[in-house]
Amino acid sequence: MAREIRLNAFAMNCVGHMSPGLWTHPRDRSSDYNRLPHWLDLARTLERGRFDGLFLADVLGVYDVYGGTADAALRHAAQVPVNDPLLLVPAMAAVTTHLGFGVTSTLSYEPPFPFARRMSTLDHLTDGRIGWNIVTGYLDSAARAAGRERQTSHDDRYDVADDYMELVYKLWEGSWDDDAVLRDRARGIFTDPAKVRRVRHDGPHFKLDAIHLAEPSPQRTPVLYQAGSSPRGRAFAGEHAECVFISGPSAKVIAPRVAALRSAVRAAGRDPESVLIFSMMTVILGHTDAEAEARHEEYRRHVSHEGALALMSGWTGVDFSTYDLDQQVRHVENDAGRTAMDNVSRADPDRVWTVREVAEHIGIGGIGPLVVGGPERVADAIEGWVEETGVDGLNLCYAVLPESFEDVVELLVPELTRRGRYKSDYQPGTLREKLFGEGRARLTAPHPAVAHRQAGF
Amino acid sequence: MAREIRLNAFAMNCVGHMSPGLWTHPRDRSSDYNRLPHWLDLARTLERGRFDGLFLADVLGVYDVYGGTADAALRHAAQVPVNDPLLLVPAMAAVTTHLGFGVTSTLSYEPPFPFARRMSTLDHLTDGRIGWNIVTGYLDSAARAAGRERQTSHDDRYDVADDYMELVYKLWEGSWDDDAVLRDRARGIFTDPAKVRRVRHDGPHFKLDAIHLAEPSPQRTPVLYQAGSSPRGRAFAGEHAECVFISGPSAKVIAPRVAALRSAVRAAGRDPESVLIFSMMTVILGHTDAEAEARHEEYRRHVSHEGALALMSGWTGVDFSTYDLDQQVRHVENDAGRTAMDNVSRADPDRVWTVREVAEHIGIGGIGPLVVGGPERVADAIEGWVEETGVDGLNLCYAVLPESFEDVVELLVPELTRRGRYKSDYQPGTLREKLFGEGRARLTAPHPAVAHRQAGF
Repeated sequence: MAREIRLNAFAMNCVGHMSPGLWTHPRDRSSDYNRLPHWLDLARTLERGRFDGLFLADVLGVYDVYGGTADAALRHAAQVPVNDPLLLVPAMAAVTTHLGFGVTSTLSYEPPFPFARRMSTLDHLTDGRIGWNIVTGYLDSAARAAGRERQTSHDDRYDVADDYMELVYKLWEGSWDDDAVLRDRARGIFTDPAKVRRVRHDGPHFKLDAIHLAEPSPQRTPVLYQAGSSPRGRAFAGEHAECVFISGPSAKVIAPRVAALRSAVRAAGRDPESVLIFSMMTVILGHTDAEAEARHEEYRRHVSHEGALALMSGWTGVDFSTYDLDQQVRHVENDAGRTAMDNVSRADPDRVWTVREVAEHIGIGGIGPLVVGGPERVADAIEGWVEETGVDGLNLCYAVLPESFEDVVELLVPELTRRGRYKSDYQPGTLREKLFGEGRARLTAPHPAVAHRQAGF
Repeated sequence: MAREIRLNAFAMNCVGHMSPGLWTHPRDRSSDYNRLPHWLDLARTLERGRFDGLFLADVLGVYDVYGGTADAALRHAAQVPVNDPLLLVPAMAAVTTHLGFGVTSTLSYEPPFPFARRMSTLDHLTDGRIGWNIVTGYLDSAARAAGRERQTSHDDRYDVADDYMELVYKLWEGSWDDDAVLRDRARGIFTDPAKVRRVRHDGPHFKLDAIHLAEPSPQRTPVLYQAGSSPRGRAFAGEHAECVFISGPSAKVIAPRVAALRSAVRAAGRDPESVLIFSMMTVILGHTDAEAEARHEEYRRHVSHEGALALMSGWTGVDFSTYDLDQQVRHVENDAGRTAMDNVSRADPDRVWTVREVAEHIGIGGIGPLVVGGPERVADAIEGWVEETGVDGLNLCYAVLPESFEDVVELLVPELTRRGRYKSDYQPGTLREKLFGEGRARLTAPHPAVAHRQAGF
């Protein structure tokens, strides 16, 4: 078949996620985020649609740039309250067999030794369906929550991350040999201690002298996701990531980012095609184009301008509460803001945007593209997008939960399958095998984790 | 009815837990600890037996005092490998309605801000069935895993714990008012920001300036368990604990500990009877006394001497590998060792114990008492134990998993119920309401957490 298009669902253990205000839609259930049945139903739906994975975002802080407080974010539930994402996984794993779980954890605030055990535990409990989205944190509010004045500077955070990765690789890959655990009831030997090694790490940021507490799990190192888009973040992704998540408003914006990313992978000595790239997209479906458009109109009425601008202010560091809603935004104050606005405006380069229009644009699905239509129009758009950008798949945001994903399963998946662009069955095995092929449960050389296997540190 | 006797099941996300070697028994399934179905079945069994809760122990280190290495612990799976306990809870919550979950987390190695969110998330997902066993850590190996030379000294750990508790109380009880979250779709207000407060904490060990990220959960603060038995630990329990877990070999040893603990509660200005005390016990049941005794003999053949002594060495700091198995132990080298040996020998004060006998004694259920018999004999023993010690219930260890708990459900629970000493139904509501009565979902004064509600910090 033509190259397979992969789908992840993109969500967060919060209300609305990338569609601030849409929790007020009568059919939206995202405000049930704190109830287990909500997530069990979602997991079953996604597996019915043969989604590769559910990608769970996280922030350990609040969006408090808008107006200098968290008030707007709180009022509109713009990613606050936000609960821990890891704890959703075991319950969803219990009601699914194939669905993967990509979970965001901010290494800046998780000590590596218990974190490594947590991921190993999840890899065991899911039978090897866990992935980790490596995040270094980007909100000053999160740093203050950890008792610091502000975050570590951007590039330094990646230096910390490099040290952290080396340490957790040693724990995951190097501490226990594959044949260390015997479970030999007759001889009364559970583990052969000669095949378990103490990890000694004396890095610039982390020190440790311990064995990993978990026995080898199906994948050992979880599938590694990364989303950094700065040059330093891209270099980090080039070295470590197996899947990369990028976002941007148009194929023209995305395509060079995909190319830059594959170059970074090559620069790190790895096969550029060995990394799967997912870009963010939101689709609003109907049985017909007209039905989808009507639904879009209906959704739009629920967008919260203030909620959207609270997110935008947090992402950019620009306080959009100081702008009038009808004010045109030709430039904003800082680099991040310019980049974000640039992303917005490139979705429609000939248009002059007001703040209100920006809010409405990012109010459904954030700064990613929004595609509205019946199954054929949306499938056409996705095929075109993949062709133009070179991405391997999409991270689909929801507008209304679970309706958006149910529509994908009912309407889009059959169409993509019919076109030979979507798998008719899951591959067997772990998440890494489903993504990269049979026999690939573990990372393979030249990934840097492999160097820590059975090494004599 | 006569005072109700409460039952918790005591387990750990590892093999064998308190019965080293019994994983080799042909019917033991504890080596499936890394598989979800194992835990789902266990949770269903416990709820069928109307257990109040499943109490999950944890250590973030290994038992490496015996022979100066972790080899013996590894060989016999003496609490290593050990996976994260928190991640078992969501899956078990999804298949139960009433069972509570008491989870051990070592505050020395978990930064308070993400930890508080984790517990709030669990309280949401379980509908208020979560408890936290507050542990400060006791293994030097865990300290080395965190990059330190050794642990903080014992009493200092409790000073850190006091600061930690104050911080998490502020997050759980003080950051969001009960009526902060409106979920008002019509007005488009999810949270009233005026009812959410930033927590500022500037303690000797922890600093923070943040709102709690989770909205109020059913219990807010999880039910607080504690197991400290030193004077400093007891004072901490007196101030903070709602349930206390104690262990010891005989009623004579336990009774004064119960009394000392209730005094500590009184000294902290709280009602001594408001704290529930659970003591550790292992029961081996059969339909008749003879069947139970035969089963005990059968189990004994699977005890690992070396595994048991690895645990004992870790608990006491005494390297039992330097003793001959047939050597009599009249004294051991240090205070902790003397106390532990004292505990063992008081189970049978007229006997002179060899190291081998000590290992066999603690090889099934650790240093707690072991009761063997048919339902009537065991119920008699439990009623007598409760009468003599003043405890409110038992933390039941397993010898063979899940057989030990299935036997309790099938044989012991009906007998205790018939005697009017065991509930015939769960109480409605959260874990705290099930334990302390209707309307008690939240902590009540004079518990110190209450002082942090709506305070103007």
